[in-house]
Amino acid sequence: MTDLNAVYTYVDEHAEEYIAQLQKMLNQPSIAAQGVGMTEMAAMVQQDMDALGFETEQYDTRGGFPVVYGEKAGKADKTLVFYDHYDVQPADPLDLWTSDPWSGEIRDGKIWARGVADNKGNIAARFAAIDAWQKIVGELPLNLKFIIEGEEEIGSMHLQNFIDDHNDLCQADACIWEFGGRDIDDRPQIHLGLKGICYVELRVSGARRDWHSSQATSIPNPAWRLVWALSTLKGPDDRILIPGFYDKVKAATEAELQALENLPDTEQILLDDAQIPGFINGLTGMELKLKDYFEPTCTISGLLSGYTEKGQKTVLPSKAMAKIDMRLVADQDPHEIYALLRKHLNDNGFTDIESELVGAGYPSRTSLDAPIARVVAETYEEVFGQEPVIYPTSSGSGPWYQLCDAFGIDAATAGVGNGYSQAHAPDENINVEDYILGIKHIVAIMDRFAQSEG
Amino acid sequence: MTDLNAVYTYVDEHAEEYIAQLQKMLNQPSIAAQGVGMTEMAAMVQQDMDALGFETEQYDTRGGFPVVYGEKAGKADKTLVFYDHYDVQPADPLDLWTSDPWSGEIRDGKIWARGVADNKGNIAARFAAIDAWQKIVGELPLNLKFIIEGEEEIGSMHLQNFIDDHNDLCQADACIWEFGGRDIDDRPQIHLGLKGICYVELRVSGARRDWHSSQATSIPNPAWRLVWALSTLKGPDDRILIPGFYDKVKAATEAELQALENLPDTEQILLDDAQIPGFINGLTGMELKLKDYFEPTCTISGLLSGYTEKGQKTVLPSKAMAKIDMRLVADQDPHEIYALLRKHLNDNGFTDIESELVGAGYPSRTSLDAPIARVVAETYEEVFGQEPVIYPTSSGSGPWYQLCDAFGIDAATAGVGNGYSQAHAPDENINVEDYILGIKHIVAIMDRFAQSEG
Repeated sequence: MTDLNAVYTYVDEHAEEYIAQLQKMLNQPSIAAQGVGMTEMAAMVQQDMDALGFETEQYDTRGGFPVVYGEKAGKADKTLVFYDHYDVQPADPLDLWTSDPWSGEIRDGKIWARGVADNKGNIAARFAAIDAWQKIVGELPLNLKFIIEGEEEIGSMHLQNFIDDHNDLCQADACIWEFGGRDIDDRPQIHLGLKGICYVELRVSGARRDWHSSQATSIPNPAWRLVWALSTLKGPDDRILIPGFYDKVKAATEAELQALENLPDTEQILLDDAQIPGFINGLTGMELKLKDYFEPTCTISGLLSGYTEKGQKTVLPSKAMAKIDMRLVADQDPHEIYALLRKHLNDNGFTDIESELVGAGYPSRTSLDAPIARVVAETYEEVFGQEPVIYPTSSGSGPWYQLCDAFGIDAATAGVGNGYSQAHAPDENINVEDYILGIKHIVAIMDRFAQSEG
Repeated sequence: MTDLNAVYTYVDEHAEEYIAQLQKMLNQPSIAAQGVGMTEMAAMVQQDMDALGFETEQYDTRGGFPVVYGEKAGKADKTLVFYDHYDVQPADPLDLWTSDPWSGEIRDGKIWARGVADNKGNIAARFAAIDAWQKIVGELPLNLKFIIEGEEEIGSMHLQNFIDDHNDLCQADACIWEFGGRDIDDRPQIHLGLKGICYVELRVSGARRDWHSSQATSIPNPAWRLVWALSTLKGPDDRILIPGFYDKVKAATEAELQALENLPDTEQILLDDAQIPGFINGLTGMELKLKDYFEPTCTISGLLSGYTEKGQKTVLPSKAMAKIDMRLVADQDPHEIYALLRKHLNDNGFTDIESELVGAGYPSRTSLDAPIARVVAETYEEVFGQEPVIYPTSSGSGPWYQLCDAFGIDAATAGVGNGYSQAHAPDENINVEDYILGIKHIVAIMDRFAQSEG
């Protein structure tokens, strides 16, 4: 039995060193959207893994930034993979930052920087945990892998190429996902999946150019065609009307329903933040939670036609466009959903409406009973001293299905963020204390998962 | 009995002089939208009327460009008013003009200039007709008035102020409207009215800012609210569904139906120009003509919500907007129509949708039997040697109702344009021959209307 307390003590004694290692990463901008600092950051991550004794390699992704891969064998015949990303969001708008977004300044018990929560703080905590383990215990308790991509913030566009080229490298028994941490009430959260997405653009054309609206008696109006088509997709009761749309929706299990019951009540916080009088259909409580986590959506994300500036222009538009964002739940297939949508349009006489599948992502869901789910939950409670809140899925998105479900790998989130970390926004931050606890949490996860059954 | 031939001969002999007078007007830019040359143009028009012996005045319109008014008494106890405008459209894009838009160059039997068709050619032709009449006959055959405004091309925004302030000046027995001429088959056209308009902007709000689309399970989407509301206004059969919308639509009379039968068949020209396979509901022939001239419309002129650029943005919009352009026919009232629309939205649960009446104009229609309609038609045939095509209404718009219907004044169009005059576009032009014929046409109208009964 490994004495984790000795490792924890080492972490505490070397906290400054581990914070400095994180700050070194934070000082290096790595903005995929702008192509800034990506080569330097990939090299830094690789060197840090090299220093831990990992066999590392940067894998070309055929058109995108490379995946930094590392692996090291350990005692148990079990493999845990960490999925992370070395790219971050742009720091704009810069004038809304209290300190330089690339400084990693420590202030008020927090570390402030672009990417500190999403997700350099997690990369550094994982490296620190391995370092501490190796310093105190020696051999790793199980085989470890890192898949650290460089395009998470721009949609993981080339990750599938890496996966296709290196199926063998992706094999593992479980995965720790890239994000995680505390909620706004400071309780640790675990997410066990992501919703999928089917993002479609609809386009309609009429006359070859905008026409004088007096001709609206005879020339078809693409804006009307679009409105009529859209109104067949979902009614005011919010029920999606595409035949077959709900067929593959998996009902929540008893355990998942129980998990929903345990979720904190954040309704009023959201109502206040959004400044709306109530939710769709007046839903609250369990009905709302079920809808949030176990029901798909069909959202108009964009609408455009004709004249949209101030005042009056008497125009009959020549074009109309809508963007439709459908969030999918297990086991909906985005390509099947797109085909159902297309068939529905055709069956309703809207063959004139062009459609394009702009983005497709599969929903993912790890069982609440999966060993990694139990290990992350139990160790959260041990290390953070608080029972975690378990979300059967997350409203966020990412390549979870591709990296995990597709390989039969269970996954869970664990991280050093919190409810006010402001990922993607100015003044992104984490608590110094959570960073240290997060290191210990990874130590405990490695130890416990190595011993787990199944 | 006046010998019109003597007047016509004088016109022919002084054609160069009358062309020069038109060119003088064409050389003076007068762009209301840009405030260019308006004072100079108003002064020129006033001086030209002074030279004809009219009592003239520039009337302030409380915020807009002045109305140039003129009147002169004649033999018969009858008054004919000419409605014109001294402003023109901007000349942009300049590089698409073959000659300087302000030169009035004569080339290929045409006069080329911004405003020559719309409507300085008509102003000059009316002045020339009066000049020739006075030179040959002496006393005018009837009382004449000119109401020449300076804001027609920018929506006649302040004309109502002039009308309200000077009701007495607006009284007349008939009106010759500002536009007119030949169609694309060179046949003279007469229009006997305009459609009205009710232009409404609809706005919907959701959360206080755009939200992540994952929250679409709970936060209402204003784009959906708008689509659902719009889909209750008109169905795919193009029938407008607002209760009461059609109640005041006046059926075409037998004479109007006959006039429609006589309209030229321009369907294929429009299909080719618009590059569409067919018209709404596959209409053709009389059904289409009836819809074009005797039915109102409800057109989406603009739609905007959320993300409308390239690719995928997973956003739940906070706002949505639509612009609705309703063309009205006699005797629909734009303010009543707006009230019906508002009531319909409320009755269907869309009280959350804000509406604003952006523009309102009444439909106008002069009877085919009105003396001025008959006079213009008969004299067209006499002077141009071709039977005119009579349109019971026009698809264009303007302050016809305000100046005519509101005072019980019958009106008809007569002018010097043609089917290729390119009003509002580069290389605007009229035929020199039509200008001379147009002068004679006004001579004949004055003579004949002075003698007409009723």
